[in-house]
Amino acid sequence: MTTGSKDDFKDISFINEIKSIAVIGVSKKRNFFFLRNHTEYFQGNVYAIHPTLKSIPDFPDENIYKSILDVPEPIEFVFITVPRELTIEVMKECVEKGVKLATVFTANFSDEGTPEGAALEKNLIEAAANKVRILGPNGLGLYYPKLGIHWRYKFPHTPGNIGLVSQSGGLSNLAIYSAQGLGIAISKAFSFGNGTDVDFIDILHYLCNDPETEIILCYLEGIKNHRGPALKRVLEKNKKPIVFLKGGNSERGSFAAKTHTASLSGNNKLWHTIFKQYNIIEVESVEQLLSTARLLDFYGIRQLNNIAVLSISGGYGVVLVDLIEKYGMRVPDFSEHVEKELVKKFFLPGTSPRNPLDIAAQMNFSESIIGIIDTALSDEKIDALICDMPSWYFNKDYYLRRGSNFEENILNSFRLGKKHNKPVIPIIQRAHIPNESHRISEMLQKEKIAAYGDPLEFIPLLPKISNYKKSLSN
Amino acid sequence: MTTGSKDDFKDISFINEIKSIAVIGVSKKRNFFFLRNHTEYFQGNVYAIHPTLKSIPDFPDENIYKSILDVPEPIEFVFITVPRELTIEVMKECVEKGVKLATVFTANFSDEGTPEGAALEKNLIEAAANKVRILGPNGLGLYYPKLGIHWRYKFPHTPGNIGLVSQSGGLSNLAIYSAQGLGIAISKAFSFGNGTDVDFIDILHYLCNDPETEIILCYLEGIKNHRGPALKRVLEKNKKPIVFLKGGNSERGSFAAKTHTASLSGNNKLWHTIFKQYNIIEVESVEQLLSTARLLDFYGIRQLNNIAVLSISGGYGVVLVDLIEKYGMRVPDFSEHVEKELVKKFFLPGTSPRNPLDIAAQMNFSESIIGIIDTALSDEKIDALICDMPSWYFNKDYYLRRGSNFEENILNSFRLGKKHNKPVIPIIQRAHIPNESHRISEMLQKEKIAAYGDPLEFIPLLPKISNYKKSLSN
Repeated sequence: MTTGSKDDFKDISFINEIKSIAVIGVSKKRNFFFLRNHTEYFQGNVYAIHPTLKSIPDFPDENIYKSILDVPEPIEFVFITVPRELTIEVMKECVEKGVKLATVFTANFSDEGTPEGAALEKNLIEAAANKVRILGPNGLGLYYPKLGIHWRYKFPHTPGNIGLVSQSGGLSNLAIYSAQGLGIAISKAFSFGNGTDVDFIDILHYLCNDPETEIILCYLEGIKNHRGPALKRVLEKNKKPIVFLKGGNSERGSFAAKTHTASLSGNNKLWHTIFKQYNIIEVESVEQLLSTARLLDFYGIRQLNNIAVLSISGGYGVVLVDLIEKYGMRVPDFSEHVEKELVKKFFLPGTSPRNPLDIAAQMNFSESIIGIIDTALSDEKIDALICDMPSWYFNKDYYLRRGSNFEENILNSFRLGKKHNKPVIPIIQRAHIPNESHRISEMLQKEKIAAYGDPLEFIPLLPKISNYKKSLSN
Repeated sequence: MTTGSKDDFKDISFINEIKSIAVIGVSKKRNFFFLRNHTEYFQGNVYAIHPTLKSIPDFPDENIYKSILDVPEPIEFVFITVPRELTIEVMKECVEKGVKLATVFTANFSDEGTPEGAALEKNLIEAAANKVRILGPNGLGLYYPKLGIHWRYKFPHTPGNIGLVSQSGGLSNLAIYSAQGLGIAISKAFSFGNGTDVDFIDILHYLCNDPETEIILCYLEGIKNHRGPALKRVLEKNKKPIVFLKGGNSERGSFAAKTHTASLSGNNKLWHTIFKQYNIIEVESVEQLLSTARLLDFYGIRQLNNIAVLSISGGYGVVLVDLIEKYGMRVPDFSEHVEKELVKKFFLPGTSPRNPLDIAAQMNFSESIIGIIDTALSDEKIDALICDMPSWYFNKDYYLRRGSNFEENILNSFRLGKKHNKPVIPIIQRAHIPNESHRISEMLQKEKIAAYGDPLEFIPLLPKISNYKKSLSN
């Protein structure tokens, strides 16, 4: 394999320096959708480019121009949404203007699957003359919350540490909107569409080297064959966790990917070899992609092999143990000295101080849970604690006894994970009182404690993180 | 194998006729928890039995008695929560009184794992003299919403068609509370504790023959060896779908089950043979237990092999196809005449009229979705339709365009499942706007349309239902 050279990768590291942007092809019919989205949080100047429009509701007239060439200041980034037959001319003007990056949202280029579309795409790239870097065509481009570059309305505007590169714009929308709900935040997201100029590998290379990105999420259907070696060079040097959702794994999925992005997603065996060789965390749904990022962000990269379980219901505890063991983790005995301490902390019949801990009716003495979790986590054997905590316990309407400081005690017991530097992962089953489950989960995730509504949402992901950590150490 | 005789099974079919109940051992310290729970909805008389108490807040003095023998009317059902050393005496009085069914909540009998506990349990059963049927000890007994028999506060009081028999009280609580949130309802639930008198098999036998129960949910850790033949006799005659969560499948889970209910849960191979032989649907979490019941209740027993997929995001659609195929289902081409019709209904670039259907920006013309789903479901090849529908589309704050009748159109398109008698299962991803996802899901489930927040919550369950149906037909 040849050594990597900078020339393998199209450089987009200048995106930090975007000061002014233009939306070319604003559409009255769409109520100026992309223009409004880009003006929502961007701090610099935003210009609207349209051949005839003189005014746009809630937008300064003086920022509307017929051509980007008329704009009186430099423009680093443009979002192009003109009809495809106008893109070439627009791109030439962007070159003349000195634009650095263009998102081409316009579709029906190579994605159309016709010779005309493919030819037009070739012409577009030629028009950019290697001077304007292109995200697209058929892409949503760049989401960069630090600068307020948002292709979509109400995207979260708090910058984070998670980079996303996705071959699907809709999937990007879902991931970006969902991140906020999960208490995680994105550094930059890229929807590269057909990826004809800047492609998946260029962006991955950028994110691997981006100081603002710590965790990388990928959605990919396929890459061009000749880019295989470049991909390997990026992965060889990469030091960050990459979580990968590969679309088109199944035969029919591969067919769907071909329809969606004209990607040849085949040769999954090859992909799995790459994932293994380069220690990439593979997941199988968008939800798992985000959930893995959340676990990595909240708890860091670590081994999660020996799990303590604490349950309110002995039966639920048994089921949890079965699930944890099914996914290759262990629920070991506590160390002797720890178990001795635990025994002292259980005082009601029907409880069990062994692993899985069964607190049963002692739940009603919530202050005792703090000492139990503290002791369990103090065991050097134990890597993490998973507990079930039904949502009704957090709802006052379900109490017949007064004076219980339940919620505060339980939240404090969950916070002990920080003290011991070990994940505490509560399952606050959502089916019963979803609002209550959501309220507690949101409170916890502000402190980077990941609560889930269903054990199968996260238990299968824990060994993936352990394996990543283990392979790092090898 | 011998043929079944009625004597194999302890009869509890009289529970329909419970008219008066007593709670024996009300506890001021617990703020009369079980007394209050049982009085919340029960329409008949509830009596409190306590040796010294003369009054209880918000409870009629005239319904408090020192002994059940003093109660001036017949009592069919008692809930016993006295200290274990008093249970024998109480049980003898119940026999004298003519009580038919007693829940013994008191624990530390055979569940304690001591010879004393085991001896006490034997004495308790002897005291009942085969005249009082016992649920327990160490059980929560009977939940029967039609009669308002609720062992716990705020249990749903709408009777349904789903029977539950569980070896775990806490797990029963979770299942009963959650059922309401999922839009399903329980006919009767039994928490049988140590199951020393009425056991798992007696209850299963009852539920299999209960006209109020159509679907049966089981949580079990183990049964006594000698009851194996009786279990088989019940299963041989059973005509209803049984969904089974077996606790203690893993080695450590089996240890935990022994601690929890003193059950020997071992020989999983044997259990799996039984599940296969008797066409029992096995699941691996409480959430899956309830979710399977919901799918069966909402959509009936049917083959779900050929799935139509409709997505807003092409990438999400590809991932859905991969998941569906991974779990052994197919996403086939539409029949030629159907595809011809579908082609006419797509008018925006970036969409695809093939399976998976990609509606992309045509989402903004929501009235067109109705025709698309109607046509897709009309295909005789297709068994069900799964679609992704991000929650933000239902939130007006996310719209920049007016006049869209989006929500009504989309709900109407989901309703087309009824017209074609085929399940439509929307995924309304919950991470982004959980309240919106919950609002729509709740609306839909009132019409028996099951929406989920994550595809892995239900996709793995669909082939289980198909296999059940297939084995029925064989």
